[in-house]
Amino acid sequence: MKVAVKVRLKKSILDPQGKTVHNALLHLGFHDIKDVRIGKLIELTIDDSKSRDEVLQMVEEASHSLLANPVIEDFEIEVEEEDQ
Amino acid sequence: MKVAVKVRLKKSILDPQGKTVHNALLHLGFHDIKDVRIGKLIELTIDDSKSRDEVLQMVEEASHSLLANPVIEDFEIEVEEEDQ
Repeated sequence: MKVAVKVRLKKSILDPQGKTVHNALLHLGFHDIKDVRIGKLIELTIDDSKSRDEVLQMVEEASHSLLANPVIEDFEIEVEEEDQ
Repeated sequence: MKVAVKVRLKKSILDPQGKTVHNALLHLGFHDIKDVRIGKLIELTIDDSKSRDEVLQMVEEASHSLLANPVIEDFEIEVEEEDQ
């Protein structure tokens, strides 16, 4: 099973990397882009023997404990590819 | 309109950051996680006056010219939030 964890900076947190990319896009002429935020797309491949619920619970735990920093980031879990 | 560009390393490219996170997860006891790949989730807010097709074409251009490095990365465009 493939599961994606989307990790985004919380709305209240400044994103200097996104700001820099936004400025570069404006310089290239992409004036219709009003904002850019850059997060992480963490894709996990997980042992097929687990049930969907077990996998989701495990990924939630992994996200809390390591993948996202709860002080400045939010995360969202998405199943990308189911087994059978 | 909100559009996400998912930027992933090509399959043939090693991902040392993903490998490190994978090792850390194994140390924490997440033995069912078989692989970790880390990409970027670039979220763009775009002027509402554009049509969906115009937006998608512009984001494709921006991805080619700046957001992704075509030598080592692939990208995928996803509309997250439509206007109206």
